[in-house]
Amino acid sequence: MLNPADDAFVQRLAALLSPDVLGGVEPRYLADPRGRVGGQAGAVARPRTVDEVSVIIAESARARVGVIPFGGGTGLVLGQVQDGGPLPLVLSLERMRAVRSVHAAENVLVVEAGATLAEVQAAAQSVDRMFPLSLASQGSARIGGNLATNAGGVNVLRYGNARDLCLGLEAVLPDGTIWHGLKRLRKDNTGYDLRNLLIGAEGTLGVITATSLKLSPVPAGMGTAFMVVRDPAAALDLLALAQARLGGLVSAFELISGMGLAFLAEVMPEQRQPFAVAPAWMVLIDVGLPEGLDPQAALMGLFEAGMEAGLVLDGTIAQSLAQRAEFWSLRENIPEANRRIGSISSHDISLPLGEVADFIAKTGPELARLGDWRINCFGHLGDGNLHYNVFPVPGQTRAQHENSREAIKGLVHDLAHARGGSVSAEHGIGRLKVDDLEKYGDPAKLAAMRAIKAALDPAGIMNPGAVLRLLA
Amino acid sequence: MLNPADDAFVQRLAALLSPDVLGGVEPRYLADPRGRVGGQAGAVARPRTVDEVSVIIAESARARVGVIPFGGGTGLVLGQVQDGGPLPLVLSLERMRAVRSVHAAENVLVVEAGATLAEVQAAAQSVDRMFPLSLASQGSARIGGNLATNAGGVNVLRYGNARDLCLGLEAVLPDGTIWHGLKRLRKDNTGYDLRNLLIGAEGTLGVITATSLKLSPVPAGMGTAFMVVRDPAAALDLLALAQARLGGLVSAFELISGMGLAFLAEVMPEQRQPFAVAPAWMVLIDVGLPEGLDPQAALMGLFEAGMEAGLVLDGTIAQSLAQRAEFWSLRENIPEANRRIGSISSHDISLPLGEVADFIAKTGPELARLGDWRINCFGHLGDGNLHYNVFPVPGQTRAQHENSREAIKGLVHDLAHARGGSVSAEHGIGRLKVDDLEKYGDPAKLAAMRAIKAALDPAGIMNPGAVLRLLA
Repeated sequence: MLNPADDAFVQRLAALLSPDVLGGVEPRYLADPRGRVGGQAGAVARPRTVDEVSVIIAESARARVGVIPFGGGTGLVLGQVQDGGPLPLVLSLERMRAVRSVHAAENVLVVEAGATLAEVQAAAQSVDRMFPLSLASQGSARIGGNLATNAGGVNVLRYGNARDLCLGLEAVLPDGTIWHGLKRLRKDNTGYDLRNLLIGAEGTLGVITATSLKLSPVPAGMGTAFMVVRDPAAALDLLALAQARLGGLVSAFELISGMGLAFLAEVMPEQRQPFAVAPAWMVLIDVGLPEGLDPQAALMGLFEAGMEAGLVLDGTIAQSLAQRAEFWSLRENIPEANRRIGSISSHDISLPLGEVADFIAKTGPELARLGDWRINCFGHLGDGNLHYNVFPVPGQTRAQHENSREAIKGLVHDLAHARGGSVSAEHGIGRLKVDDLEKYGDPAKLAAMRAIKAALDPAGIMNPGAVLRLLA
Repeated sequence: MLNPADDAFVQRLAALLSPDVLGGVEPRYLADPRGRVGGQAGAVARPRTVDEVSVIIAESARARVGVIPFGGGTGLVLGQVQDGGPLPLVLSLERMRAVRSVHAAENVLVVEAGATLAEVQAAAQSVDRMFPLSLASQGSARIGGNLATNAGGVNVLRYGNARDLCLGLEAVLPDGTIWHGLKRLRKDNTGYDLRNLLIGAEGTLGVITATSLKLSPVPAGMGTAFMVVRDPAAALDLLALAQARLGGLVSAFELISGMGLAFLAEVMPEQRQPFAVAPAWMVLIDVGLPEGLDPQAALMGLFEAGMEAGLVLDGTIAQSLAQRAEFWSLRENIPEANRRIGSISSHDISLPLGEVADFIAKTGPELARLGDWRINCFGHLGDGNLHYNVFPVPGQTRAQHENSREAIKGLVHDLAHARGGSVSAEHGIGRLKVDDLEKYGDPAKLAAMRAIKAALDPAGIMNPGAVLRLLA
């Protein structure tokens, strides 16, 4: 059983640290970005060095006090928000945001965990490279949190998720020892893959304090298009066509529904829409091509092939950088429009690509048995990752349907799981989906996870209650 | 302490299995491909199903009998060869080689662990896809072993190593439970990354019985060239140039030394050499390009740019598929030529790319203090992975230098480690490099590895003595 981060503990810990490392609990450390619950903490630690992190964790382990690693606070599954149990210590990485070294010729950047994703992207740009991880919250989300949650986003199709972009880690393990694993190697088969174990563990097996990241050359030419597709099945056929023609060079392939466009028209009428009549389904395609290939011509070729195959009904290709940005702003405003409409239940599911179209076709009618809803299904189609969100019909509010939330969620998750899908594609488990993990997770994997947690964190101090249920 | 797989155990186990699952110990199950040591075993199990594997592991755990998972027997670090201690059971996956399902539109293949890498490649080809993992022993190496050792090879630069090509696993854990993790998902953030923990664990945390693999579209055009470079530093500059011009589309970038060519001329004179006068250093470059780009023209453009930059001195571009194959046969024969010459000490190291040229420049002179040697340094330069092998001078034999082996190895590994390199880039630890792992490994990582091993395999039955030292 854990002890609270009470005054006595905080005073004891403060004596081991520089004067201003420990501070009061400002509200921003306790807020859930979706406003569902409020957190609590006995104090907030804001260390400047990995050695200070080590002292904090070691002392917390000794005292059996829970530690909640805190990045940008943008996580959507309550991984950074503990709303019950003994008061924990919040450990914010915000003061550890230095770029430690840049190795442009190696395509490697070494940066501390508290740098925001946007700062990491800027550091890459400053040496003519790109760091391809990209997501809506990149201005506030910190790279340590991106790694702890194995963040996804829009460029996973080509460049992979956070896991695939990480070469090495520096981390403090649950007993306070420091793992110096900031390798800059593309190949290293020396023992168990501790890096990938910490990535995606959501701070429950240790705290990432720095990372060496893979950069990529900036493609010679980038192009973006909206293409109206017959239906989601046609969108998947178009994806296959794009991959065959441009193998490996399609960086994003995003599904957008007519409902998403209608939501934008309703609550963000200033957002310019690409088609005079909103289509039922369209995709946003991004390509990055080497010298010798013209992105607009390549997209035009794909458009024509898609038309000929009966997959594509209409389309528009960005003619300038400004227009590319405008196209992307539409995609990026969809989550904000959803927020303003107010969903009853939001889902972050993934499916085998071959199951996506049929899932979309069948799930709406199944949900209709529970009531009348508006469904905004959008997301990273190239990765089989759908944000399948359910809203009240016009004139009704989410509050009226609180009682339906569990049934809706259960139905969507059951149907995704039955098709070999995942109930958390990119957001993680946090505290929100612990029940889902127990319900849908493989028992042998769950047992292995519990054994690993107990082995590495016997006192159970690291992000208690996230991912795995706290044992009383 | 483990018990031997003695007659009583074998009879007890046999009673739980189909009649012919357990069999005698043919010599091939005990052989090290480099002939350094001989193995031992009490029996060989050749199950047909994952349920049979489960029974074998569960019974071995109960009896505390060591189990050595056996794939193609091609591993180079004695991971499949136990030459002392209580007699283990060898568990060969050779009868589990079915293709369970092919999902061409998803670019996914689900296959059992005993399929050879060549069979996996052929299954991909049969649906117009490629499985890009490629290595010299692919005709015998099995995909389960490739994954257990996180195999590398020649296409890692573009497509990643075995880890990066795996979407899911079915595996039997050390207590005999089956993990059903054959997902076909590109994104799945539901809990700890057990997949990557088993990949690279070399059979010490469980046995992989099947896998879902990522396939890739076949590039529209493939091209191959030899380019003579001024020195290894120029080769690295040429790599950067190639990446900038063809970002992401360079699939192989292999370094070949004049010594390697001389060895081929000496022991494989039938191998056609690409240049009349053997150069000191050259690279073999492979590119796979989409529609609209001509591979030969792209390679010619790179050649001219490399000449202009003073990096490239000469070159030849394959004009046909037959010539591509001929170019590659030269590269692939280098290990066999090495074997016939007979190395004193072979090394599989990786370095940060920025350290490679200086390492090569400085290590030869350092080694010369220990004696006169011939050095064949070759390998996957794009990954910073060098096979840095040391041979006797003409007229001498490896046997004359047995006493120098440890000093040579220590020097090469020390110098690689000091530059942030790895002493096992792609071959793994096995039993050969357990001391190296203890010497060079990060103490916090090693402690975490031991804790994980003890948690998942408390009896210590899985591939005992591999990766981590057996505790008496």
